[in-house]
Amino acid sequence: MKTNQGRFFEDFTLGETIRHATPRTLTTGDQALYTGLYGSRFAVNSSAPFAEAIGYDGAPLDDLLVFHTVFGKTVPDVSLNAVANLGYAEGRFLAPVYAGDTLWSVSEVIGLKQSSNGETGVVYVRTTGFNQKGERVLSYCRWVLVRKRDPASPAPEAQVPQLASVVPADEIARHAPRLTIDSYDFDLAGSADRFDDYEEGERIDHVDAMTVEEAEHQIATRLYQNTARVHFDQMAASAGRFGKRLIYGGHVISLARALSFNGLANAFTVAAINAGRHVAPLFAGDTVSAWSEVIATCPLKGRDDIGALRLRTVAVKNRGCADFPLREGEGYAEGVILDLDYWALIPR
Amino acid sequence: MKTNQGRFFEDFTLGETIRHATPRTLTTGDQALYTGLYGSRFAVNSSAPFAEAIGYDGAPLDDLLVFHTVFGKTVPDVSLNAVANLGYAEGRFLAPVYAGDTLWSVSEVIGLKQSSNGETGVVYVRTTGFNQKGERVLSYCRWVLVRKRDPASPAPEAQVPQLASVVPADEIARHAPRLTIDSYDFDLAGSADRFDDYEEGERIDHVDAMTVEEAEHQIATRLYQNTARVHFDQMAASAGRFGKRLIYGGHVISLARALSFNGLANAFTVAAINAGRHVAPLFAGDTVSAWSEVIATCPLKGRDDIGALRLRTVAVKNRGCADFPLREGEGYAEGVILDLDYWALIPR
Amino acid sequence: MKTNQGRFFEDFTLGETIRHATPRTLTTGDQALYTGLYGSRFAVNSSAPFAEAIGYDGAPLDDLLVFHTVFGKTVPDVSLNAVANLGYAEGRFLAPVYAGDTLWSVSEVIGLKQSSNGETGVVYVRTTGFNQKGERVLSYCRWVLVRKRDPASPAPEAQVPQLASVVPADEIARHAPRLTIDSYDFDLAGSADRFDDYEEGERIDHVDAMTVEEAEHQIATRLYQNTARVHFDQMAASAGRFGKRLIYGGHVISLARALSFNGLANAFTVAAINAGRHVAPLFAGDTVSAWSEVIATCPLKGRDDIGALRLRTVAVKNRGCADFPLREGEGYAEGVILDLDYWALIPR
Repeated sequence: MKTNQGRFFEDFTLGETIRHATPRTLTTGDQALYTGLYGSRFAVNSSAPFAEAIGYDGAPLDDLLVFHTVFGKTVPDVSLNAVANLGYAEGRFLAPVYAGDTLWSVSEVIGLKQSSNGETGVVYVRTTGFNQKGERVLSYCRWVLVRKRDPASPAPEAQVPQLASVVPADEIARHAPRLTIDSYDFDLAGSADRFDDYEEGERIDHVDAMTVEEAEHQIATRLYQNTARVHFDQMAASAGRFGKRLIYGGHVISLARALSFNGLANAFTVAAINAGRHVAPLFAGDTVSAWSEVIATCPLKGRDDIGALRLRTVAVKNRGCADFPLREGEGYAEGVILDLDYWALIPR
Repeated sequence: MKTNQGRFFEDFTLGETIRHATPRTLTTGDQALYTGLYGSRFAVNSSAPFAEAIGYDGAPLDDLLVFHTVFGKTVPDVSLNAVANLGYAEGRFLAPVYAGDTLWSVSEVIGLKQSSNGETGVVYVRTTGFNQKGERVLSYCRWVLVRKRDPASPAPEAQVPQLASVVPADEIARHAPRLTIDSYDFDLAGSADRFDDYEEGERIDHVDAMTVEEAEHQIATRLYQNTARVHFDQMAASAGRFGKRLIYGGHVISLARALSFNGLANAFTVAAINAGRHVAPLFAGDTVSAWSEVIATCPLKGRDDIGALRLRTVAVKNRGCADFPLREGEGYAEGVILDLDYWALIPR
Repeated sequence: MKTNQGRFFEDFTLGETIRHATPRTLTTGDQALYTGLYGSRFAVNSSAPFAEAIGYDGAPLDDLLVFHTVFGKTVPDVSLNAVANLGYAEGRFLAPVYAGDTLWSVSEVIGLKQSSNGETGVVYVRTTGFNQKGERVLSYCRWVLVRKRDPASPAPEAQVPQLASVVPADEIARHAPRLTIDSYDFDLAGSADRFDDYEEGERIDHVDAMTVEEAEHQIATRLYQNTARVHFDQMAASAGRFGKRLIYGGHVISLARALSFNGLANAFTVAAINAGRHVAPLFAGDTVSAWSEVIATCPLKGRDDIGALRLRTVAVKNRGCADFPLREGEGYAEGVILDLDYWALIPR
């Protein structure tokens, strides 16, 4: 068969490596569209002179544009028949990506575990994104629940990888050049708050909110060449569980990151993703807002230019964040859609 | 009058040449937006290193972005008062177009035939797209049914051009450089299938589907500077035959081409358009899918790098393609919206 | 507090200067998206060779893309708590802006006047946009009605700036290089009409119309990094006066300018904004059309290449412009949404 129907659980082998299609040259055009889709305002990505003044070779592309591009390539090979995207871990941004760079992705199957009902199984992959020079720009693990082609087929030996619950702080600043903070213009960056102004346990309501349209998430998801049909096919969705197209979870991450500017304007780059969970689905017409908690503040060895904030950013739909919604009983509070634990870097 | 109200049938003269406004410099920004609108994944257009490795000077812009740009310029002069876009023939892509190239269009009126009711007439034009060096990058014929300003005005002598039903195979590979197929990475391209793997009569269901939104087709159609009001003006459409904005037929062609990646991933460039027919209109909210038939496989004289596939790609709305819908009685099957006959090039 | 809740009337001080975040490098990607959002066809912005042939260093970015970018930066500091955007004056485009240029904005508070009810006040600012070389590219005044934090707080001394009702013609061509009109191709530009073909009092119905979608105005407004929540947050809007998201007034200006191509194709650049008023709100689903009146035609001292047209362009919603709707009794006619008085330059 010439068409890709997506792999089923049985089609994955522990240890196998998949080189994904299609390499993608990212350009200022992609960054412009990314800005139009999320309204991101972090100065390092928005202004080449700002970025160059502090030590970059130009304005690096938004970290999450890089993430979604690397991720999108894995979809046809990994998650076309996924029932659910269960989680992320050990996400590391390893080199800045500039307009003109070409990204491609490789995934290794690092774990397999059939579900007890025999109808699905969890596939764990470690995906690495490379640039045209073969340098690693991003690496992350994710695990997805994938349908079996045939519930009667035998289960592989269960293998669940040990994944770190947090990326060690001394590994997270590799993609950030040493910055000339004297040249970092806090007026232009939008806030005077730097590393020392944040403290553990602090919670920030990011105030703003955005209602998402079908055209927006579809354009975004196609920009990343992510082909998961649940995002695009209303005819199929109408017959499905929700009756609506599902919005790509990464779209929510980008919305939350863009909203987080209001309160975290100088957290200029995402350095690592410790854990991420798409708690509930988002649909067109829903309104997204977000809040963050500072889980930890961490100086970085050998770096007096920047420090790291470990952040939990929570996105919600159709409700505000003034009361910092998160838990309710054993589960998540009504309206919570994303629970993201990550490291961001910020000037000292 | 300073405004363009569009030409009526009486305003065309056989043999006249029209230089169209507005020249357009296409950029990586246009290609990024094109990717966001259709999710195209052909490696040659997506990755500059991929394209350069096999012999291009960079990633060529998507062929259909070129087509729509050249086409869009003709609309204010040719089809503003068109009742229907009847067909295409003799479409030839003649040179690759890269980001930074500027396109402009010239049309020659090659046929005129008044309708028997005297209220409309068919106008045949051959349109040529040029780049900034004056090189021809695209040439195609189309014919449209145009309203007469005054049904009482005399009919011109009927002149119907003889158009080839298929572009000869030895004329279709001019825009493709000689490729270094050893450097063509079939993993990264997304499929192992090459010329010899396809056979005449083979049919491929492209599986995926996309629901189209008003914002998407409007952004696309404006990107091409196509001004046909039926695509943009809901107030006028509400009083019209369908009650809705019509989606530009070229948008359907691009959707079908992008969907055809799943099954034709290595058919890296559209080389010629033999015939095309917009069988039924598409509206926002409709879901598009597509299937293709291999009409012919043709080696190319003097080219051991690539061969040609003559393809019929059929796009449908609001139904699947598992049963390869096409004909029903004398006409097209319910749901068919596009019947496109074209040559694509593929590595040997 | 780390988040910006926006300034209230009491937070402005006469004479203070605000350097706004975030600088923005505009690229061909932004111009492509701008074209996709409005369908602008002015040849100077659309084609680099066209622009270079007549004396530009390349295709300048659309004037209104520059305006919206400079404007967008002021929103978080000036108008987040604005009740209404009351007007513009003394808008001057001072240098062409090219892809790759980086814009940033500074505003000076030039007037303050508390409303008689004590609950709001008018803030007058003069905003200047700079490029990366520190050159001024745009300057304009606007005044907005801003809520007070506390109605009981004392009123500042009222200070209302004297603003010119029209930018003097001898100050308006600074951003236009001396043009080689012999190289200006009127075919490619889309019209033969030049300076001498327009006369005072002439009115032009721009004929075309566009229906606006939520995704379109949201993408546009985010592209400009304009954060006014009324454009994005349907949840809040549902509880508000209109029940819907308001479309950024600048989106209407850009739509009107793009529509005005049909009748003003050679009015290749906006040189100055004399006055502008957003008469009524625009919502998604509304259809916009426009007409213009030539208020004055003005030769420019020392410039035999170009002249200036002072234009009033009126945008309306959900009605045509064949009867040039403007006034009705004391107020504006039903459906009028924009009344814009500006200078455009046009070849002689």
